Amino acid sequence: MKKKPVSGMKDILPAEMAVRSYVTSVIEEVYASFGYSRIDTPLMESIENLESRQGGENEKLIFKILKRGEKLDLAGAESEADLVDSGLRYDLTVPLSRYYANHMAELPSPFKALQIGSVFRADRPQRGRYRQFTQCDIDILGDESNLAEIELILATTTAVSRLGFTDYTIRIGDRRILKAMASWANLPEEDFDKIFITLDKMDKIGLDGVRDELLSMGYPAENIERYLSLFAYAGADTAQLLSLGKVLGDALPEGVAENLRGIIDTVNAVRENEFSIVFDPTLVRGMGYYTGPIFEISMDAFGGSVGGGGRYDRMVERFAGTPVPACGFSIGFERIILLLREQGFTPPARQEKTAILLPRDADGTAAAEAFRLAGEIRKEGGTAAVISAKKNRRFQMEQLEAQGYTDIRTI
Amino acid sequence: MKKKPVSGMKDILPAEMAVRSYVTSVIEEVYASFGYSRIDTPLMESIENLESRQGGENEKLIFKILKRGEKLDLAGAESEADLVDSGLRYDLTVPLSRYYANHMAELPSPFKALQIGSVFRADRPQRGRYRQFTQCDIDILGDESNLAEIELILATTTAVSRLGFTDYTIRIGDRRILKAMASWANLPEEDFDKIFITLDKMDKIGLDGVRDELLSMGYPAENIERYLSLFAYAGADTAQLLSLGKVLGDALPEGVAENLRGIIDTVNAVRENEFSIVFDPTLVRGMGYYTGPIFEISMDAFGGSVGGGGRYDRMVERFAGTPVPACGFSIGFERIILLLREQGFTPPARQEKTAILLPRDADGTAAAEAFRLAGEIRKEGGTAAVISAKKNRRFQMEQLEAQGYTDIRTI
Repeated sequence: MKKKPVSGMKDILPAEMAVRSYVTSVIEEVYASFGYSRIDTPLMESIENLESRQGGENEKLIFKILKRGEKLDLAGAESEADLVDSGLRYDLTVPLSRYYANHMAELPSPFKALQIGSVFRADRPQRGRYRQFTQCDIDILGDESNLAEIELILATTTAVSRLGFTDYTIRIGDRRILKAMASWANLPEEDFDKIFITLDKMDKIGLDGVRDELLSMGYPAENIERYLSLFAYAGADTAQLLSLGKVLGDALPEGVAENLRGIIDTVNAVRENEFSIVFDPTLVRGMGYYTGPIFEISMDAFGGSVGGGGRYDRMVERFAGTPVPACGFSIGFERIILLLREQGFTPPARQEKTAILLPRDADGTAAAEAFRLAGEIRKEGGTAAVISAKKNRRFQMEQLEAQGYTDIRTI
Repeated sequence: MKKKPVSGMKDILPAEMAVRSYVTSVIEEVYASFGYSRIDTPLMESIENLESRQGGENEKLIFKILKRGEKLDLAGAESEADLVDSGLRYDLTVPLSRYYANHMAELPSPFKALQIGSVFRADRPQRGRYRQFTQCDIDILGDESNLAEIELILATTTAVSRLGFTDYTIRIGDRRILKAMASWANLPEEDFDKIFITLDKMDKIGLDGVRDELLSMGYPAENIERYLSLFAYAGADTAQLLSLGKVLGDALPEGVAENLRGIIDTVNAVRENEFSIVFDPTLVRGMGYYTGPIFEISMDAFGGSVGGGGRYDRMVERFAGTPVPACGFSIGFERIILLLREQGFTPPARQEKTAILLPRDADGTAAAEAFRLAGEIRKEGGTAAVISAKKNRRFQMEQLEAQGYTDIRTI
């Protein structure tokens, strides 16, 4: 018998669980007030859907599940496909796309969904990174306009601010601008993914670092300089973004820069929380399924992203057969828990907690009295527990105080 | 690409999800007021723990997960054990026992835990029965006294009543009485499990049906009559239970009948909700790990059990090495959802919902105005969503009304 959890996964103790429950309830409440409906999909998905090249690198990290039914036929199995027909989901976006395609006739359009659930990735175990973790996504399906992006950003920043975070930045870009910039610089389209991996390191290695890497990859210095010159248009001033759009000219589909500017300007006009939103042409977002605007929450306190998302207009079509515009924003649930725990955050206690200690030799009358008293305390909105007294009373008192019992009585 | 969920699992649509969230929040609130701490364990467990003969029939229904790391070595695999080292949990009791053993030093004693989570069983798919479903358990670890049973019953019945159910029955027995009765009737101990499977059908086939089955199994008629005569002691009057204890004499360990009587009498003395508690010597509870009192919630409306539990004093020891008394009560979450949905239950709406429709050709100023208005409504505690107007306005209005939007405005 093994006492430890399986490799790379963790037991959640009451103190962490209290923070997780609190964060979940704040998020649920904020998103409900924006009109998102909570939904759920099975934790298992068919292997065909998981390996459909929508999940990028995550597809290498699937936990695969043996077929059920007849006894495992090892001798007769010629390949993995003979043994496996499903796996654990590695994100919430692939299942949501399948879900929407499956239930389109029953769901409104646009459909605003909230998902909070576990996902699984068989990553190499490392500190603070687990093979099972919680994701928390909102998505709008069926709205091709940038109202979707604006609302996702307003809802997510409201939730993040309600959780006590200030001074964070929404970085926003667009996959089409990303491609147009590389294209305008005459970099080869078949190398875009490689080039974007380098570009993605801009915040760590700087412009010079990116230049060096691109040079070492063998592109002409002239093209690289042409490429890097475009990054001067980054920033909070959306006039710059329009200028970039003009520079890119035919390389960029019509309206893309204006669409992005509309998002930034509207968010700036109505935002009530302390954050800034800036155009960041270095933003890449790994997943290949993004088709338009992409965004991330950057928080200095964490030195990285605590959430992100974007538009993925072609994904639902793979399941549904007809195109369905879609856009989502995922809050970095686990990172937010980590940050709150590092700050020593404890959720506001709802009420006083009363422990009623009952001696080991108490008779039925005393027990009934204790439970009746506890019931009265609960009826007035309090928390009350009837607990067997232990021999080591002082130790038990300490344990009860550590659990937040401020009122300890003995019957 | 597959649109349907994997076999035997289901997508949860917003209407059902709203009921599930409501039930979860009521259960969480009631159990928190009794002092239970929410905890969580990974959805995966090591296969050694799952196949440790604690899970009864469920061990035949484990979803097994392929080892991660190197590429699947089909040719080199001689048995399933070369491919599999973990599986999905089939209940919350085995993981809780492991969890408590793993964290005993950090947890108080007694420890009162609440778990709400998914479990998996690769059952033959059938109507209303799914391969992934939610369990909701409370457990008390470290209390050998019957205060644990009393409190579990009071907490669970408070939750069930708060969910609107009345007129249900707690059936309670004790594994030791179950065994003593069969033993007193000179039925062979090695057949007890088989005999109890027959006994378990008492509510369906009646005393005569049980007699016939036992006769067909070849036991002497005299022993069977001796056995069946004992079931006259069932019922709400605990004086009967003490009489049964006297009849069983040395076949029953000392104090067992008195312990059970104490539970029933105290629950009767303090219960505030409409339910009855009766001694039921026909109650079996399948799991082999039970060591003492066992109980079930019977609800006429469902014609069966909507929850159950019992004492399992030897299970944690298998992980911890030292004995830890334990007792738990599981609410039949899925059955309660089913019953509420059949009754047409909808959770109380928290607030008015406002939809602000924005025409397709609206400019940035109009969009900002819509989002600002929505923000003001939310600030006053309302729900407000900014939504792209669709061409078919009447159809969209109907969809919005179906989603509970009572206030629909156009900007």
